[in-house]
Amino acid sequence: MANPVLVEVTRGRLVESRHRGAVTVSDAEGRTIFALGDVTAPVFPRSAVKALQALPLIEQGAAERFGLSDEELALACASHSGEAAHVAGVERMLAKAGLEPSDLRCGAHWPIAQAAAAAVARSGAPTPLHNNCSGKHAGFLCVARALGVDHAEYWRPQHPVQRLVRSVLEDFTGATLAEACCAIDGCSVPTWAVPLRNLAHGFAKFGTGRGISPERARAAARLRQVCAKAPWFVAGTGRFCTEIMQLFGQRVFVKTGAEGVYCATLPKQDLGIAVKCDDGASRAAQAIMAAVIARFLPLAAGERAALSRFVEPSLRNWNGFEVGQIRMTDALR
Amino acid sequence: MANPVLVEVTRGRLVESRHRGAVTVSDAEGRTIFALGDVTAPVFPRSAVKALQALPLIEQGAAERFGLSDEELALACASHSGEAAHVAGVERMLAKAGLEPSDLRCGAHWPIAQAAAAAVARSGAPTPLHNNCSGKHAGFLCVARALGVDHAEYWRPQHPVQRLVRSVLEDFTGATLAEACCAIDGCSVPTWAVPLRNLAHGFAKFGTGRGISPERARAAARLRQVCAKAPWFVAGTGRFCTEIMQLFGQRVFVKTGAEGVYCATLPKQDLGIAVKCDDGASRAAQAIMAAVIARFLPLAAGERAALSRFVEPSLRNWNGFEVGQIRMTDALR
Repeated sequence: MANPVLVEVTRGRLVESRHRGAVTVSDAEGRTIFALGDVTAPVFPRSAVKALQALPLIEQGAAERFGLSDEELALACASHSGEAAHVAGVERMLAKAGLEPSDLRCGAHWPIAQAAAAAVARSGAPTPLHNNCSGKHAGFLCVARALGVDHAEYWRPQHPVQRLVRSVLEDFTGATLAEACCAIDGCSVPTWAVPLRNLAHGFAKFGTGRGISPERARAAARLRQVCAKAPWFVAGTGRFCTEIMQLFGQRVFVKTGAEGVYCATLPKQDLGIAVKCDDGASRAAQAIMAAVIARFLPLAAGERAALSRFVEPSLRNWNGFEVGQIRMTDALR
Repeated sequence: MANPVLVEVTRGRLVESRHRGAVTVSDAEGRTIFALGDVTAPVFPRSAVKALQALPLIEQGAAERFGLSDEELALACASHSGEAAHVAGVERMLAKAGLEPSDLRCGAHWPIAQAAAAAVARSGAPTPLHNNCSGKHAGFLCVARALGVDHAEYWRPQHPVQRLVRSVLEDFTGATLAEACCAIDGCSVPTWAVPLRNLAHGFAKFGTGRGISPERARAAARLRQVCAKAPWFVAGTGRFCTEIMQLFGQRVFVKTGAEGVYCATLPKQDLGIAVKCDDGASRAAQAIMAAVIARFLPLAAGERAALSRFVEPSLRNWNGFEVGQIRMTDALR
């Protein structure tokens, strides 16, 4: 059965495009509080689980040993925009662990931020430092150094770092990460598909510390704190994850992933949220996440107004004329 | 009822994302030869009808009067990548009609081509000349000059140029373009929603010259010829429309539009094709169009191989590793 249309994109008086998807909200015990669409189908969480992938950095003592700052830990959880301070932060992480930018195996792409891309074009070409995943990769390298293992192949599924990451993901999601659900992410590390409801449950545990060991709960709390303190380092100027965490601080942790995925937790409400847009569209997944936050997080009037521009944003053309809107369907209202 | 899933995007052994849509093939008499999904719902064709929007340039004598070259006429039909020769061509069109780049009202955006964007970043910032629609706008301006009317507001629905364009679109599609189905395009000119089957019928007429006046049929043939001669000017380096028309010459005219639209004609087969991906994804619309061309155009073995990389392209990550594939569902095989 088809997932419901959750988001419509209008132009003039008509609907121009439609996005189907699934969304679910879980508590820390794994009870489904809210669900639309098939929440049992496996979904690659991609970068939406970077904060879980970063937990070994705390748990293995790498963050302490190398004296990583809040901003640097936020970068380990980030899909950053490749702006100058993001790149400088990743370079610092590597230097603190005695590593070089050339140790990164994420591949190079142009900065997500247009202004940053233009600046890179003026001075040269993008490097792996500009890859939105470079902070995560620097984190993996720091873990390898803390473990005292060869770091050269830190991105391979069988490397001790990725084995640790896999066990963390299994602990949070409660899913068995079998070979059949393993694929290669954009930055070459493994990504494992798990049902959307398991992702929501995992983020409820991440937000509350329930259902995981006390040590792991403390590590999770630390990462939520650094992201709330330094949300610009989790994404960048004008980006959704940054703006939401700037707005709500520790009340919301939210992280995007490629192909229309978002995961979040509302710690005070004991809730985890997971979104997958069927067609992989970020514009729709973001609007869905904003709508679900608006529904489950108690909001002051000013906060509701600030959030509404993400729930139903207007669309403008190259001359700044309003040409349409992204809007929720009744399924999500 | 939901449109069928036509395209799947895989990662590893799983389907990561799915694209629904509609596609139809029509002959010049408006008979439906092939259809999947709802082909009666209104669709904004966006840039897919630029060749129809460019017909007044021939019909009103502007092309002849200003001595526009094949490449310049191809630019009038283009969503170009903003590469140096595209920009230079649009500047020439304007100069030939005694106009300036500052007369363009399409707005500015960064060149679609990454290398061109980097070059612009090194020397300055993008201008309206870099807008993928600047050739179309230069064409509109040339028509205004040929008509002897004030060109300042050439982009408004009530301007004589846009009235001519509207009547051409009505003639080809057989649809009444009412206010209720009019919206503003990305470059600020009007775009009218029409059923997908009307677009396919219109392109069968564009390809065959049947069902339109002999004068209009000659103008259409001229535009098909210039695009087949100078396909690089219709899109740019590595782009689908360019590569398909380089491969097939006058056997295929194909043009992309924003939000997952493609229109094409196979003149020898007397067929028009129209595609709309529900969610607006170009990657899916392009694969669907390639699959339909492969189905209805007689192909030599080498041509089939050349086309197959567009029908079911492999997906590679930043390190060049193959991570998945775009593939057709059984509905389209």
